[in-house]
Amino acid sequence: MRMYDIIEKKKTGGELTDEEIRWFINEYTDGNIPDYQVSALMMAVYFRSMTDRETATLTAAIAESGKMLDLSEFGELTADKHSTGGVGDKTTLIVAPLAASVGCKVAKISGRGLGHTGGTVDKLESFPGFNTSLTAEEFFNQVRNIGISVIGQSEGIAPADKKLYALRDVTATVNSIPLITSSIMGKKLAAGSKNIVLDVKYGSGGFMKTAEDAEVLATNMVEIGKRNGRRITALITNMDVPLGYNIGNSLEVIEAISVLRGEGPEDLRRICIELASAMCASTLSLDIKEARARVIESLQSGKALAKFKEWISAQGSDGEYTENADLFPKAAIAYDIKACNSGYISHMDAEMIGNAATILGAGRASKEDVIDHSAGIILKKKNGDYLNEGDVIMTLLTNDEGRISSAEKMATGAITFADKAPELMPLIHKIII
Amino acid sequence: MRMYDIIEKKKTGGELTDEEIRWFINEYTDGNIPDYQVSALMMAVYFRSMTDRETATLTAAIAESGKMLDLSEFGELTADKHSTGGVGDKTTLIVAPLAASVGCKVAKISGRGLGHTGGTVDKLESFPGFNTSLTAEEFFNQVRNIGISVIGQSEGIAPADKKLYALRDVTATVNSIPLITSSIMGKKLAAGSKNIVLDVKYGSGGFMKTAEDAEVLATNMVEIGKRNGRRITALITNMDVPLGYNIGNSLEVIEAISVLRGEGPEDLRRICIELASAMCASTLSLDIKEARARVIESLQSGKALAKFKEWISAQGSDGEYTENADLFPKAAIAYDIKACNSGYISHMDAEMIGNAATILGAGRASKEDVIDHSAGIILKKKNGDYLNEGDVIMTLLTNDEGRISSAEKMATGAITFADKAPELMPLIHKIII
Repeated sequence: MRMYDIIEKKKTGGELTDEEIRWFINEYTDGNIPDYQVSALMMAVYFRSMTDRETATLTAAIAESGKMLDLSEFGELTADKHSTGGVGDKTTLIVAPLAASVGCKVAKISGRGLGHTGGTVDKLESFPGFNTSLTAEEFFNQVRNIGISVIGQSEGIAPADKKLYALRDVTATVNSIPLITSSIMGKKLAAGSKNIVLDVKYGSGGFMKTAEDAEVLATNMVEIGKRNGRRITALITNMDVPLGYNIGNSLEVIEAISVLRGEGPEDLRRICIELASAMCASTLSLDIKEARARVIESLQSGKALAKFKEWISAQGSDGEYTENADLFPKAAIAYDIKACNSGYISHMDAEMIGNAATILGAGRASKEDVIDHSAGIILKKKNGDYLNEGDVIMTLLTNDEGRISSAEKMATGAITFADKAPELMPLIHKIII
Repeated sequence: MRMYDIIEKKKTGGELTDEEIRWFINEYTDGNIPDYQVSALMMAVYFRSMTDRETATLTAAIAESGKMLDLSEFGELTADKHSTGGVGDKTTLIVAPLAASVGCKVAKISGRGLGHTGGTVDKLESFPGFNTSLTAEEFFNQVRNIGISVIGQSEGIAPADKKLYALRDVTATVNSIPLITSSIMGKKLAAGSKNIVLDVKYGSGGFMKTAEDAEVLATNMVEIGKRNGRRITALITNMDVPLGYNIGNSLEVIEAISVLRGEGPEDLRRICIELASAMCASTLSLDIKEARARVIESLQSGKALAKFKEWISAQGSDGEYTENADLFPKAAIAYDIKACNSGYISHMDAEMIGNAATILGAGRASKEDVIDHSAGIILKKKNGDYLNEGDVIMTLLTNDEGRISSAEKMATGAITFADKAPELMPLIHKIII
């Protein structure tokens, strides 16, 4: 088999065989195919796309390029959740213990943040002493004992994706549906859960910019998951505006706790209930209404919060943090951004808000950056809200005064005012099963 | 400027600026842009193509990436000729001295053969002692004194093309019109001649497979040549069948001499007259009829052959070879392939015939192979000829008996018989000025 022939075949619109796809992934992972041939193939795939059969095989080959988590001892009960990334997206912090409290086995691998979107592992590390690097034995024991465990991305999972993504990132070949699908789903397959719920976000702060594009991606991921033997649901949700009001690691943890307590902002609460319900319906073979009822009951009864506390304690932090938000260290500087005019907020660019939070210390511009867990933004108003001149729009939080000025510029640039109230997009656009 | 942005722009159908094209070629030549980004761009160009303005700039940038031959002392009189490569294509051996004998200044850089097509430099080296590595001073002096000099490809000419072509060759990005044009014309611009005649071949032994594709390429090359200040003519010629009857280095030299003597096969003679006439018309500002008359007169009067002899002697060989073909060493083995049936030759795959000649020792399968100048094939019959069972179709010539069997298989596989005489394609399909 020759890589040249595979490139030529895809370039001229041919369909690659399973053997060709598996051969190319294995040889590339092993370092036997040069980057310059793979980037040419990725560009040909961008233009010619892939059939579902090709994408399913590519996904499986990526998953099998490294370590596969064997969760078979938990039977059909394992449940995973993936978000394509958003600003203020702390849903995993809520949905994981919520689903576990209803009976799912959540054995989850999560990522760190990069760019304008945060990562669950960074957020969890806001809890002093929280350990995201458990040994395999600790990880499995915790799932057995309390039904939930979340660790950071391991080196050995889907190494083909790591190489491919790094290459696509510098060759303008990221935005191809089969390549995005195989990257996300390859890692999910390797992570081993039987049931997967996807939160595919669209809008100014989402990976996909339009609902239509998000739907194409979601449909493709659901199809590819099914072809690889998983039960899978995708929610297409709006990310024109940050989720909830808090952006930044410990700030998001605090907001997550408020939802687990049965309170919290309505948009965040609603999306978490829908994600957890989809997870429980699939995992426990429940009717969606029944699943939703159990999820809401768990929130109201305090079972979800109790599971959260159990989890945080099990992974080495102090459970008291889940009951008293004042325990988290606070940023030294709080700076209010006020409205210069009166009017409605007609648009809030979520990506720019995320970037402003990154500037304040909440995220990483490059992999080497160190995170300030207390830094970030607390929104006081969102899309559709009316402001009088002088009202506070948001508060910037940081420990480094030098960062305020450029964060303020970025954040104010994100806000558009109008005389009329804007039409708001529904939070949940569609559910694909 | 970032290579990522250039790839993204071309991928999404944008038009690259002159600055972007020149920056990318210069930085790539200098080793500052990795192959994997360039191969992604080449694939994007394959799908999105380039405007004439982009191709013209790319061509100029490739030409200017290295040494540019300065032929300005010869004014408007310099003439060059390029063939996209064919089997049995010995036209340069004839056209170069023919044009020089009429008054053109032929200061030419030629290539070596690879694969099924031969190279002029290899053919010239059939003359014992012929030197294709003249110093710049020797090269220029020879053009001044006798109006013709041909040397091998120099290292310093269009280094960007060398890098780009090697990369395209292994990433399935060769067959893109703007990339082919810029590769060929980039080298031609660097070679310095004011007047350029292109022989764009199509058919089973040509670089392009159809007349339509060849016309698209020829039109593009003429346009790009003009935009870069050259006078340029392209002939689109058929290469379904080898040119003339002899394939192989000294065998082609012998056939070329017969044409220069006013004899030779009609197809070869005709194409050489048309190429030389186009060259002379452009270079000497003659009406094409007047140019053709002078060319034919030179062939008939013996002036062309005399110029050939002068040239061969000037570059270090013995002029007697141009007058007595028996002086060339002969291959030890001559093997006749005979017809098993009666009928017309309806098709002769020129590429397969070329490959058979390569097997016999006439060409190189890889760059390291050594050429046997006396090896090759002499055709006895061509497309449209009628054969009785047992008639000789062709004679294989080699010094290595072990090569006969596989060469015979390849050569017989190239011939298709039919009961009826086939319709033959015209040799010269079109002329584009």
